[in-house]
Amino acid sequence: MIYLDNAATTALHPEVLTAMMQYMQDNYANPSSVYKSAGQAKMAVDKARAQVAGAIGAKASELYFTGSGTEAINWAIKGIAFNNSPNSHIITSSVEHPAALHTMQSLEKHGFEVTYLPVDEYGMVKASDVADAIKDNTILVSVMFANNEVGTIMPIAEIGACVAQANTQREPERQICFFTDAVQALGQLSIDVAAISVDLLAISAHKINGPKGVGALYIKSGTKIMPLINGGGQERGRRGGTENVAGIVGMGLACELAIADMPKKAKAHIKMRDWLIEQITDKISHCKVNGHRAARLPNNVNIAFEFIEGEGILLLLDSKGICASSGSACTSGSLDPSHVLLSMGLSHELAHGSLRISFGRDTQMDELEKLVEVLPGIIDKLRQMSPLWEG
Amino acid sequence: MIYLDNAATTALHPEVLTAMMQYMQDNYANPSSVYKSAGQAKMAVDKARAQVAGAIGAKASELYFTGSGTEAINWAIKGIAFNNSPNSHIITSSVEHPAALHTMQSLEKHGFEVTYLPVDEYGMVKASDVADAIKDNTILVSVMFANNEVGTIMPIAEIGACVAQANTQREPERQICFFTDAVQALGQLSIDVAAISVDLLAISAHKINGPKGVGALYIKSGTKIMPLINGGGQERGRRGGTENVAGIVGMGLACELAIADMPKKAKAHIKMRDWLIEQITDKISHCKVNGHRAARLPNNVNIAFEFIEGEGILLLLDSKGICASSGSACTSGSLDPSHVLLSMGLSHELAHGSLRISFGRDTQMDELEKLVEVLPGIIDKLRQMSPLWEG
Repeated sequence: MIYLDNAATTALHPEVLTAMMQYMQDNYANPSSVYKSAGQAKMAVDKARAQVAGAIGAKASELYFTGSGTEAINWAIKGIAFNNSPNSHIITSSVEHPAALHTMQSLEKHGFEVTYLPVDEYGMVKASDVADAIKDNTILVSVMFANNEVGTIMPIAEIGACVAQANTQREPERQICFFTDAVQALGQLSIDVAAISVDLLAISAHKINGPKGVGALYIKSGTKIMPLINGGGQERGRRGGTENVAGIVGMGLACELAIADMPKKAKAHIKMRDWLIEQITDKISHCKVNGHRAARLPNNVNIAFEFIEGEGILLLLDSKGICASSGSACTSGSLDPSHVLLSMGLSHELAHGSLRISFGRDTQMDELEKLVEVLPGIIDKLRQMSPLWEG
Repeated sequence: MIYLDNAATTALHPEVLTAMMQYMQDNYANPSSVYKSAGQAKMAVDKARAQVAGAIGAKASELYFTGSGTEAINWAIKGIAFNNSPNSHIITSSVEHPAALHTMQSLEKHGFEVTYLPVDEYGMVKASDVADAIKDNTILVSVMFANNEVGTIMPIAEIGACVAQANTQREPERQICFFTDAVQALGQLSIDVAAISVDLLAISAHKINGPKGVGALYIKSGTKIMPLINGGGQERGRRGGTENVAGIVGMGLACELAIADMPKKAKAHIKMRDWLIEQITDKISHCKVNGHRAARLPNNVNIAFEFIEGEGILLLLDSKGICASSGSACTSGSLDPSHVLLSMGLSHELAHGSLRISFGRDTQMDELEKLVEVLPGIIDKLRQMSPLWEG
């Protein structure tokens, strides 16, 4: 199997699994209990907290574990919103992940006003658009760090600076929060919460060879946010639920390994990415690279093929043992074309014919060569079947 | 180590771990993707859904996976509340788990009206009190299946009947929902959602030898509830976030094993429980059994010792290799006495001096004998140090 869908999820790192096993087999204590083994479980959670915080330049005391990246995103947005009156205003982009977009839509039903900023043809939000959209009642700016479908890296530091600039003219109790969904950026790009002036940042373990079912939210010290999940005193009273110790330990080590591996891996991936884009666009006519060419996640290739459906490409690739995606796995059950591609100005037809390839830490050049070998035939076969294709 | 804190959490069943390993090592695909391995992961999630649903007499289509029991509880309560206007009324008990109680308190801040029903000296809610508390604007009744601290089993079927009776006189759009937190009951008592007329029921995997970080919410077909976690199309659009496949598979098998094991285990536990209560109350003066003697979880023993602090008992037990709890692990970091024991009418002093022993599937009689051997000396030692004790 050639797995080229690492933006959807990744294989668990063997070292991460080994670290997790201790808390699945030997020490299963509840970290909130008072006996020795519970104290050890608590220490393991604390160590992981420091590891994850370290990966984004945060203090461990600013890091809160959740059950997924999606939960962290919901918490950030709803936690700020519900701390304010429903007449408040939120700024976001039209290309966010469904976890953010659907949360915004649910807030609109509660009376919140949401501005969905447009993106350019590369899927990029303009920082000046953020600045222009800020109003008296704006409470939150939420823009993703990098897009999960087309890999475009947003000007997050610039947006953070715009929000910080606006905040200099506002009273302490009217400060605008800046949140970024960094689920796809973690392990691909350097993240430093201080450098980008961000108040809230969401990440997930399973995108960086960690376990599924664990994520984290960075909450800058002093940020007023309501819990999404009330409960016992876990996560310093801000997120209830018995800690998923094994999962948290796994996320901690996965972060450490991903950050250590990143410079070398990113360099290799960029080379592989650019080679693959060149090969595909060379060998196949009537196709278009989606997303920014330079400001792009190292592991992301997204290409639209005219006259065909992405679903067909995936099925034929699968028959050759190659796993890929037509956009986001989270919406792949849906027949609607990608909201990201439509926002970038692609036609419905072209948006339907897109293919996302995303590399992981194990991806090898010979796997990409195999893809380049079979893809032209697949596209050709599908086009021959298409009523739109005139060869 | 003698582990007698199974109400806090349990050891992962070796067979459950084996089942999970397949989805941590071999098949790591995102179930929402379209290739073969993803389809297999999706089938594994579907199988687990049927297993968990089967454990509570539900249809698989009524079962939704969450990241914890606490998330399921938050979802049930907030999901119903936020589907209604903030002037609505909710009925609960004063002895609920913090996951429910703190959620109620957060709803009060949003303008919801909450009635906290008292309990009797055994920690039991009266069904007639529920019936009497129902008002025109009541939208939700939330009473736990069995108490996590003192093990008292609530008259859930009677309460369900009261709600159902009230609903016969209300229009379809004004039906009251009945939710029960069955986290402690699962695997200890038979649960049949139809027999208890419940609309929503929350459970957790790690209390029944499943993994931490996964729970589930039963939502009766037709129940109108808002998502707590918006996102992709997972869980039929009702709970976003990439499925924790390994955790879900673990919960499915843990449910199946727990239900198969329950009749035999419950019988053995009841015998051990009653023996232990008799032994402790025989051997130690000035102590009191907390909770109902008959309507009680098979694996729960909770005893208050006059003149001493529960924390001291736990530390000395720990030094003998025995793990136990003073109440709920979720609040053990707190210095406040148990809200459950206070609600039952215990004095602050007595509530502070309580010990919870909870058995698991591996608990052996010789472990309880060891406890009975060391406990009198521990209590005596602590009382000798207590300024309140006069021998």
